[in-house]
Amino acid sequence: MEVLKAVITAAGQNQRTLPLQSVVDTDGQTKAALAILLEEIAEANIGEVGVVVSPGDEPAYRAAAGPHASRLTFLAQTTPRGYGHAVLCARDFVGRHPFLLLVGDHLYVSGGERRCAAQLVAIANAEQAAVSAVQPTHESKLPYYGAVGGRLVAGRQGLYEITEVIEKPTPTEAEQTLIVPGLRAGHYLCFFGMHVLPPTVMDLLTEADGQTPDAPRLPLSPALARLARRERYLAAELSGRRYDIGVKYGLLTAQLALALEGRDRAEVLAGLVELLATRPK
Amino acid sequence: MEVLKAVITAAGQNQRTLPLQSVVDTDGQTKAALAILLEEIAEANIGEVGVVVSPGDEPAYRAAAGPHASRLTFLAQTTPRGYGHAVLCARDFVGRHPFLLLVGDHLYVSGGERRCAAQLVAIANAEQAAVSAVQPTHESKLPYYGAVGGRLVAGRQGLYEITEVIEKPTPTEAEQTLIVPGLRAGHYLCFFGMHVLPPTVMDLLTEADGQTPDAPRLPLSPALARLARRERYLAAELSGRRYDIGVKYGLLTAQLALALEGRDRAEVLAGLVELLATRPK
Repeated sequence: MEVLKAVITAAGQNQRTLPLQSVVDTDGQTKAALAILLEEIAEANIGEVGVVVSPGDEPAYRAAAGPHASRLTFLAQTTPRGYGHAVLCARDFVGRHPFLLLVGDHLYVSGGERRCAAQLVAIANAEQAAVSAVQPTHESKLPYYGAVGGRLVAGRQGLYEITEVIEKPTPTEAEQTLIVPGLRAGHYLCFFGMHVLPPTVMDLLTEADGQTPDAPRLPLSPALARLARRERYLAAELSGRRYDIGVKYGLLTAQLALALEGRDRAEVLAGLVELLATRPK
Repeated sequence: MEVLKAVITAAGQNQRTLPLQSVVDTDGQTKAALAILLEEIAEANIGEVGVVVSPGDEPAYRAAAGPHASRLTFLAQTTPRGYGHAVLCARDFVGRHPFLLLVGDHLYVSGGERRCAAQLVAIANAEQAAVSAVQPTHESKLPYYGAVGGRLVAGRQGLYEITEVIEKPTPTEAEQTLIVPGLRAGHYLCFFGMHVLPPTVMDLLTEADGQTPDAPRLPLSPALARLARRERYLAAELSGRRYDIGVKYGLLTAQLALALEGRDRAEVLAGLVELLATRPK
């Protein structure tokens, strides 16, 4: 399962300006959030990146991509029809190959040497299977995520075989179908915003779109649930954390997380203490 | 000295995208930095705002201004000729009236009920004089600011009569001409990025520009130094702090300062503690 292409979705109306936000990366360099995602992808040895954007956003994205701009193919989503539809806009770009899928409004902070996307692609290669990154998440946060049910792969910590996928499950749905043995009580495996998916996902999305062509939105999670019934589809906990920069204080939290894991940790901690100590008078 | 117009300069090449950055304000609302500046100006009872931009940036700025967009007049700076030249681009907009001048790459956090711009305009009205906001700043930071020398106005804490203005003074220059009695040792009065200036500043800038028409840059500080020799020109310490969002970690620091002074203080402090306690593994 060699992964040579990546897709970033960034056409959502509340999401369009997020990849353009300025952030200081772990290396101490100031970049657009998009450039940090593109480095994450490059470190997973993926050369071609399709970016699903709202028409007209291409020039700003090209500028934000900096040195990575030449690797981008822009794919316009002309109607705001949901996440599955955004992914489907990359159908021709992806072709008949597996691809890495990222959301444009998250940043990832790795806990180790290898970045999150590289960890995920390595698992897909080793297992020769589709794999979604997941993070054990408290049930109070279920309204914000897609969640999966499954069973631990024997002898493999943090690797699960997915049996069910539900978008933003209710607590009852989660309790009935998504409990994963081995997780802390009240915790579920929620999506991390990063997947390695086979091209069959595009077929499943096309099929779903054909069945309800007038639906205002085409979600991704039902297609992933069908994928789980058709082929081996894994969930993997990575060494790292995801930060949604679209929520309130999301950029602040992501920036702090990058700074605390990066080369400027001491400087930023010192600045934090100074700020807490000296309120304006 | 009724101040009815404000000018924001935002055409600098390294500064153009800063007013477009997304920040959560003290009221808990997510806005562009530009919108926060425009609220600051509105609370000083100023209705008309001229924004000096690089040509082509108008649509993005209009979108970032949100509900304040109708109060904006865009003034294009077609050549990057420095801060004084940017101010001079607002000459016709300002006319023969005093104006509030703000830099587009700072955010201001007030320590009291009244915001910084309103404090400054009230001082200008009460004193019937030009006034620049200043902040006592350690000499190690002189390379980043314009600084003033002067004497305390008798019986008025934090109010000074300016005798000299030097842009980014060397330590020697500062020691020889900018020592202000009453400040802590090693501290100087550096600009806060906020001024109430008379229209004569435009005359002084025009004059300087005419004397050296081929100079690549027209700075503001020499014109302010001449202003100090021609009329009563004050410096005022405000209750509040300035945050330069253009420096490394500037946005992070400004966002934290806003959050710690705002309605979400407890939530943000809790998030900070959680982040410090749970590093990715």
